[in-house]
Amino acid sequence: MRENTARSSVLPVAPSRGRLRPLGLDEVRITGGFWGRRRHTNATATIGHCLDWMERVGWTGNFRAAAEGRIHRDRRGREFADSEMYKLLEAMAWDGAAHDAEIAASTDVVAPAQEPDGYLNTAFGRPGQQPRYSDLEWGHELYCYGHLIQAGVAQTRAHGEGELAKIARRAADHVCATFGPGGIEGVCGHPEIETALVELARATGEQRYLDQAALFVERRGHGTLADIEFGRAYFQDDMPVREAGVLRGHAVRALYLAAGAVDVAVETGDEELLAAVVRQWEATVARRTYLTGGMGSHHRDESFGDDFVLPPDRAYSETCAGVASVMLSWRLLLATGDPRYADLAERTLFNVVATSPSEDGRAFFYANTLHRRHRGTVPPADAVSPRAESSLRAPWFAVSCCPTNVARTLAQLPAYLATADDHGIQLHQYADAEIATTLAGDRDVALRVRTDYPSGGSVTVRVGRSSDHPWTLSLRVPAWTRGATAWLVDPDGVRRAVAPGTAEVTRAFRSGDEVRLELPVAPRWIGADPRVDAVRGTVAVQRGPLVYCAESVDLPDGREVDAVRVDPSAQPEDGPDDTVVAPGDLAVPGRPNGAAWPYRPLDEAPAPAAEHGSGIVLVPYHSWANRGPSTMRVWLPTTTPPGRSS
Amino acid sequence: MRENTARSSVLPVAPSRGRLRPLGLDEVRITGGFWGRRRHTNATATIGHCLDWMERVGWTGNFRAAAEGRIHRDRRGREFADSEMYKLLEAMAWDGAAHDAEIAASTDVVAPAQEPDGYLNTAFGRPGQQPRYSDLEWGHELYCYGHLIQAGVAQTRAHGEGELAKIARRAADHVCATFGPGGIEGVCGHPEIETALVELARATGEQRYLDQAALFVERRGHGTLADIEFGRAYFQDDMPVREAGVLRGHAVRALYLAAGAVDVAVETGDEELLAAVVRQWEATVARRTYLTGGMGSHHRDESFGDDFVLPPDRAYSETCAGVASVMLSWRLLLATGDPRYADLAERTLFNVVATSPSEDGRAFFYANTLHRRHRGTVPPADAVSPRAESSLRAPWFAVSCCPTNVARTLAQLPAYLATADDHGIQLHQYADAEIATTLAGDRDVALRVRTDYPSGGSVTVRVGRSSDHPWTLSLRVPAWTRGATAWLVDPDGVRRAVAPGTAEVTRAFRSGDEVRLELPVAPRWIGADPRVDAVRGTVAVQRGPLVYCAESVDLPDGREVDAVRVDPSAQPEDGPDDTVVAPGDLAVPGRPNGAAWPYRPLDEAPAPAAEHGSGIVLVPYHSWANRGPSTMRVWLPTTTPPGRSS
Repeated sequence: MRENTARSSVLPVAPSRGRLRPLGLDEVRITGGFWGRRRHTNATATIGHCLDWMERVGWTGNFRAAAEGRIHRDRRGREFADSEMYKLLEAMAWDGAAHDAEIAASTDVVAPAQEPDGYLNTAFGRPGQQPRYSDLEWGHELYCYGHLIQAGVAQTRAHGEGELAKIARRAADHVCATFGPGGIEGVCGHPEIETALVELARATGEQRYLDQAALFVERRGHGTLADIEFGRAYFQDDMPVREAGVLRGHAVRALYLAAGAVDVAVETGDEELLAAVVRQWEATVARRTYLTGGMGSHHRDESFGDDFVLPPDRAYSETCAGVASVMLSWRLLLATGDPRYADLAERTLFNVVATSPSEDGRAFFYANTLHRRHRGTVPPADAVSPRAESSLRAPWFAVSCCPTNVARTLAQLPAYLATADDHGIQLHQYADAEIATTLAGDRDVALRVRTDYPSGGSVTVRVGRSSDHPWTLSLRVPAWTRGATAWLVDPDGVRRAVAPGTAEVTRAFRSGDEVRLELPVAPRWIGADPRVDAVRGTVAVQRGPLVYCAESVDLPDGREVDAVRVDPSAQPEDGPDDTVVAPGDLAVPGRPNGAAWPYRPLDEAPAPAAEHGSGIVLVPYHSWANRGPSTMRVWLPTTTPPGRSS
Repeated sequence: MRENTARSSVLPVAPSRGRLRPLGLDEVRITGGFWGRRRHTNATATIGHCLDWMERVGWTGNFRAAAEGRIHRDRRGREFADSEMYKLLEAMAWDGAAHDAEIAASTDVVAPAQEPDGYLNTAFGRPGQQPRYSDLEWGHELYCYGHLIQAGVAQTRAHGEGELAKIARRAADHVCATFGPGGIEGVCGHPEIETALVELARATGEQRYLDQAALFVERRGHGTLADIEFGRAYFQDDMPVREAGVLRGHAVRALYLAAGAVDVAVETGDEELLAAVVRQWEATVARRTYLTGGMGSHHRDESFGDDFVLPPDRAYSETCAGVASVMLSWRLLLATGDPRYADLAERTLFNVVATSPSEDGRAFFYANTLHRRHRGTVPPADAVSPRAESSLRAPWFAVSCCPTNVARTLAQLPAYLATADDHGIQLHQYADAEIATTLAGDRDVALRVRTDYPSGGSVTVRVGRSSDHPWTLSLRVPAWTRGATAWLVDPDGVRRAVAPGTAEVTRAFRSGDEVRLELPVAPRWIGADPRVDAVRGTVAVQRGPLVYCAESVDLPDGREVDAVRVDPSAQPEDGPDDTVVAPGDLAVPGRPNGAAWPYRPLDEAPAPAAEHGSGIVLVPYHSWANRGPSTMRVWLPTTTPPGRSS
């Protein structure tokens, strides 16, 4: 892998080597469109909403109680409640200067809770509490440090080293002293500190943080954690990282660990470790990932299921697993340059990360099911909600990792759009944006991206500033265009078909040059591998990168989505306002509730005819559940009953 | 409902009124065939196997430890371990005289553990233990009494009142004193005592047992139990029995309660209560029952799922729920005479109750899944097993309710075959049997049934003794013959087509007369209601009352069942040894493991062709997993991919 010499310091992920060089938040700016609106809502609504809830539920107060010596009786929330404060601090740091006062205030709350040796956790270690590190399986102490360190790195990179960064450094030094060679031979039940320590090593140049991260990665999989009810696979302590063939156990833990392993592999030049994670990513994407990019099909332990066990109605697809999957794919993209990682990140951003927050940014999905059978109840506006219980988003959860994870992801999103290398600039995600960087040889380049993506498929890149030397503009042609035709129009107006992967234009660009990518976003039927038992006999609709769904609020007469049947022999078509109209009908009369027995010999009379044959309105999956309680399904039964067709 | 004047006392269920009068174990004898072989194994292997395990795991020893004052430190097993002893005692009582010595020995173990006031439970109430009735939600004290009382009734009816019956009476008197009017206003977290108390009232003529049972039924659903993690529906305390529309919560609890409610309704003439249970049975059978008759689709809380949520791979379908379902259907059949209850009992007996024990009667399924994806490990021969973990039956479980429930059901099975009424005799289940009873007017009748059922569909009833007066022989024509033709041949050799329901021959039968029922047992494809999402695009095969399955041990080259695809446009045919050969193939080459992404646009190339087009061997579901670890599926994917067909 090549050495990176990043031009920017405002980087969420800054590997010292790799195929691609990331661009910083001072080099890429999102100016509007799909993600621009969501980032605005995040900055102006979500972050404040989360800070308010942190006070309301007492999790911010935990730091005060710790500093004031009354935490043993006053602590609120779960073991990992501290981490939500750190994730919010990270979000505010990346989001820009508007949060300076909140960052300072929150830092002032956190700081006095740190103990003289750097230890910082409000759930353990003080009189009347469990001892430090007495419950590595469930205690989340190292996990919390991970988020603290990420917040510290964000502050340093975005605003210069301040108090928060110092707190994080002290905590990291404490971790190295306590868990380094000769110290506690343990790992945290919830991986996260691995990737954080590598980033701190990158930010500070201190090797010992990288060494400690590498030690944590290597230690895992040797059964140092207890064999819990869910088995050691739950926290990936069942086998060494470099021996595993697929991600397993708790999805967020597995993905955070994999991200940390890539970071370690890149910094140490460990090709074997990198290859192991690539192999796990491939197997997980091929066999354990929902159409939305969502990961995790078990509610009980928030874990991956077995290969091809992807029931839409039991999809857990935790928002945090979506965030973690984007983190992993981004690191693999930087290391390898392979556009397949950007493909998965795109799918996950549009269909998991964008699905979690409500339109107003003040309510969230924790789990992102692909089939909701019951409208359920409305989550309380003034109390925490359980996970995955309602058809509507909830303002806060008893375990509320997802809102703050969405906040920090949207805040750093511009950094995921583009990269550079010796040859030029690569665009990976499409959004209205302005990009300015310096290529090798001190050649300044500025670009402006304009697109109606994902509603439309036209992406125009206008060169604002360029050098006289030729360079290459690379544009990802998404894998979802497979079987259709994408076009690239170069600055001379020459139009050529391009295949999924990467389309390139190399020339001495001049100011005003335009390159246009035309992606075919007509809605298409999607079928699943026959081994995915749970969606057999159904089809889904994808339009561009967006997965679509039927939602009961769009059906006539108060019908529920289980009456929907579609006819994949005809084509779905664009409807108004980003809807799709799928050929199909509602099969209600053919399915009387009074049937005595739900099974019948196939040689008996077929089901009676259906009604409402005028087509089914589908909406983007990310937009569902913004119009009151509803039922919803992504995978739509087809009109052809089994054995009636050939 | 009419008054019953039972001619026999050897009756597991002896309602004082109802449409049909049950025949006792002294009136119906199974002489061979499918159930004869299983009853022989039960008597000669299973009962002894269970007694041995009860000693081995220390559950028998609990009674000794209680009597000797050391139970607080020596108790073994779960709260309800006592009940397994009672279920074995019941099994031995119904099974016949061969177990006299074991009954006496086991009774001698139990008796000294009973306290002077009748209280009897080894988990509660003694020094160092939790107080009596301090945990009605989970304590199972009344549940254990229920099984004790059923054992006592069995002993009284089969052998005359003995020591066991006296213990049970004392316990029942204690229950009435403790939970009667003015006593504890509670119910047991696990219903069971309701049906037991009614049977004790029937056996003794004591009204107070019936009153107490009615009180328990009426009390439930008013939230006297705590609101646990699974909700009060778990133990049916969410709404009054007579208001519920469908069975819900823990399947065994729901079914035992419903059985007890029918008993109370019949004895008290409460038509409203009976109608409520009929309504719940109808809704449950129409929307919450597997093709096998199995009930319960949640592993976590062993409960019913929502309507039409019947995933084959997550089928819990507990053996005990099958037993309880047969108990409920039998009570409803006696009360109403409607053959649909015998239809469900038949389905459940052949496909759940007969599936649980291994061929040698020394290992059991606790859960009866309809799809097993992994061969799994071999259960230990000398240790208890977890539930639902292996593809093989296990010798004993940490919670081992199922083996003893199978034992008592097989022991009393002859009583489920036939009934009488004022007009004659009704045959509900078909097995080689001898039946002798006295009809109204002191007319002795004897019948001999010969059949190869369920392998074949021919049932011959030969009259051995009859009176000169005409009477009616009724034969159930199973609902599964719908769409095919069943024939009845009368003693004159006249052959007529008969429809599902009841076929009758009325005449003054003479000795030697034969009536023959010819049922069409050719294998047939079965499809499911389209609302059962989890089996869309698949078909099953049923042959007579037997559900069939594909098992990996019958596939070539070590293939697993997920490669199986069948073609329902052709017909399945009989193979040798009760197998069926289904038209189909193995689709292995079309599903490479290396696929990068398991979803594809339907307008892209279809899946490659399959191999092994010579047909798929299917075996009766009840017989699977007797040939080593295997994978298995009941619902078979069809060869027609979605959207490729019309």
